[in-house]
Amino acid sequence: MTASSNKPLPPNSTIGIIGGGQLGRMLASAAARLGFKSIVLEPGHEPPAAQVCNRHIEAAYDDPAALDELVAACDVVTYEFENVPMAAARIVEDAKPLYPPAGALEVSQDRLMEKRSLREAGIAVADFIAVDEFDGLKSALLEFGGGVLKTRRFGYDGKGQKVFQSADLPDDFDLGGLGQGPFILERLIDFDSEFSVIAARAVDGTIAAYEPSMNVHEDGILRTSTVPSGLALGVVEEARSVSAQLLEALDYVGVVGVEFFCTGEEILVNEFAPRVHNSGHWTREACVTGQFEQHIRAITGHKLGSVARHSDCEMINLIGSQADDVARYLDDPHALLTLYGKAESRAGRKMGHVTRLR
Amino acid sequence: MTASSNKPLPPNSTIGIIGGGQLGRMLASAAARLGFKSIVLEPGHEPPAAQVCNRHIEAAYDDPAALDELVAACDVVTYEFENVPMAAARIVEDAKPLYPPAGALEVSQDRLMEKRSLREAGIAVADFIAVDEFDGLKSALLEFGGGVLKTRRFGYDGKGQKVFQSADLPDDFDLGGLGQGPFILERLIDFDSEFSVIAARAVDGTIAAYEPSMNVHEDGILRTSTVPSGLALGVVEEARSVSAQLLEALDYVGVVGVEFFCTGEEILVNEFAPRVHNSGHWTREACVTGQFEQHIRAITGHKLGSVARHSDCEMINLIGSQADDVARYLDDPHALLTLYGKAESRAGRKMGHVTRLR
Repeated sequence: MTASSNKPLPPNSTIGIIGGGQLGRMLASAAARLGFKSIVLEPGHEPPAAQVCNRHIEAAYDDPAALDELVAACDVVTYEFENVPMAAARIVEDAKPLYPPAGALEVSQDRLMEKRSLREAGIAVADFIAVDEFDGLKSALLEFGGGVLKTRRFGYDGKGQKVFQSADLPDDFDLGGLGQGPFILERLIDFDSEFSVIAARAVDGTIAAYEPSMNVHEDGILRTSTVPSGLALGVVEEARSVSAQLLEALDYVGVVGVEFFCTGEEILVNEFAPRVHNSGHWTREACVTGQFEQHIRAITGHKLGSVARHSDCEMINLIGSQADDVARYLDDPHALLTLYGKAESRAGRKMGHVTRLR
Repeated sequence: MTASSNKPLPPNSTIGIIGGGQLGRMLASAAARLGFKSIVLEPGHEPPAAQVCNRHIEAAYDDPAALDELVAACDVVTYEFENVPMAAARIVEDAKPLYPPAGALEVSQDRLMEKRSLREAGIAVADFIAVDEFDGLKSALLEFGGGVLKTRRFGYDGKGQKVFQSADLPDDFDLGGLGQGPFILERLIDFDSEFSVIAARAVDGTIAAYEPSMNVHEDGILRTSTVPSGLALGVVEEARSVSAQLLEALDYVGVVGVEFFCTGEEILVNEFAPRVHNSGHWTREACVTGQFEQHIRAITGHKLGSVARHSDCEMINLIGSQADDVARYLDDPHALLTLYGKAESRAGRKMGHVTRLR
């Protein structure tokens, strides 16, 4: 169901959030600040978002009774991760406005659909070939002289990927070892840098794109995002314009995170996430309107806020034990610390982030 | 009980907040962001702070069982309003660190003690005379040729005050009509402007004072706070230094709001509030570290954040029905809206605020 009128939601309206991790937590806090209530659906016990929202429905994402409870209590529903079961999204969508729309969610869940949609929208992506089995992989590798093999679904933080530097494929390679198929092989991109654009589209179609941040990944996990990015002005403008193109093509409402490769000559979209994005956390500290408030403004039918930036900054993810000694971050008067309220730090787990203003 | 060591509190420690209004709400949100949990003690049902904290103890501020429950569950306790019953403050203080300290709280609850303490600390205040009864008022008015009569306790937002432009006192004047005595008469100050300084002191004694904001009151209620204040640099520096003097004198920990009169020739302290302050809301939008985070940093034993300001701004309180149509604020991309989650707007009730960045 899309909004039947253009009327923005009044204060004390209720926002449903599917997923209770750190992104849900920061969305719930932004909602509260704007005077909205929030209800989080998440199977985990005392997840990060439940600590700052009005109510936590502790149930599976596809539990029909829980979904009924959620839509009955909410005026609009959103989500904090792209692997919301499509069946759940459809149940919600039939009852209440769901933003970003289910169509965008569906496209983002399948790398093949995603790449095809981007191409159809006139957006440059790395060459790709759908791979269903061993023989298909073999011929695809020959065509690209190597490539990155990825599961079409459920990959994140570098999981479900394997790089082939050449077309050589051992006869005993186990495609199933990478995860559940089907797969996609993407041509290896010799990129200079990775950056991303956080952009938003309002119900009225207005678009606002933050300037790109330069991103550094290690072991497939985002470590830092820096602004200004150091990208040439032409690249910055092209990336913003490509992001707007994507939002239009998807008839999108809410915040999107678009990841790019910059090869020096051109920019290619790697993927997009239909949600607030880790590489956009700096916007809350360095811009007039942060991405979390921007998303809440968009999905409640309000106008977008200014994406103007007032400070240079670097956002550093705190992974695992990096968040154990917080005093070292708080000792820096220009470092803004955000912790996610997770009970224990585990290797590879995102525990918080620091934004150093410069 | 003061902190037995200088060790700052680790993540997931719990902060008790006495009072569940908008200040408690913004404190709880700031605590969550830094990875702390919060428990709010407040007799009201579903008050603003309860919507964003980990737990709400619904009980009177002086309920001994509730206070026991609070201190047992918390690592440090603070408060959002200055009329916390002293008996409650003492119970808390005997069990856990209470910041700001009970001594500062006690002084702030009595205008006579407050004025005397300020004077003892070498801080200029308006002349004052303690008034206990009608005859005392008569002679005090004669001495000052008029004055502002105030209840010593429980005055706020201009309540419990009466201005006398001359020493004329009608024989049928009812002192009791102003509120509960005893009283204080203050000499009328012919001030040019009212401004305030938000300052903080850490457990290690470090002090940071934000620059002053120029404040406009109507009907005794703060309407706007503006920075830069337009005050002369010498006045700005003196006001910061006076605020630091006050924090030292009170052996303070946490954020304080100090209200000043500027007469053109000199600055006088009107009063201070031992808590985060309405006239400091702009710090969250326009400074590196906002007053709420600053208070949480201070009371958890961490270092203070930077009070540097990145934007000019004006904070406008939304009183009563001014908050009914929020779209008009959200339509301005440079206006940052904060609503307090109050169920209904009533005349004179603070519903939210807008900070317009310029």
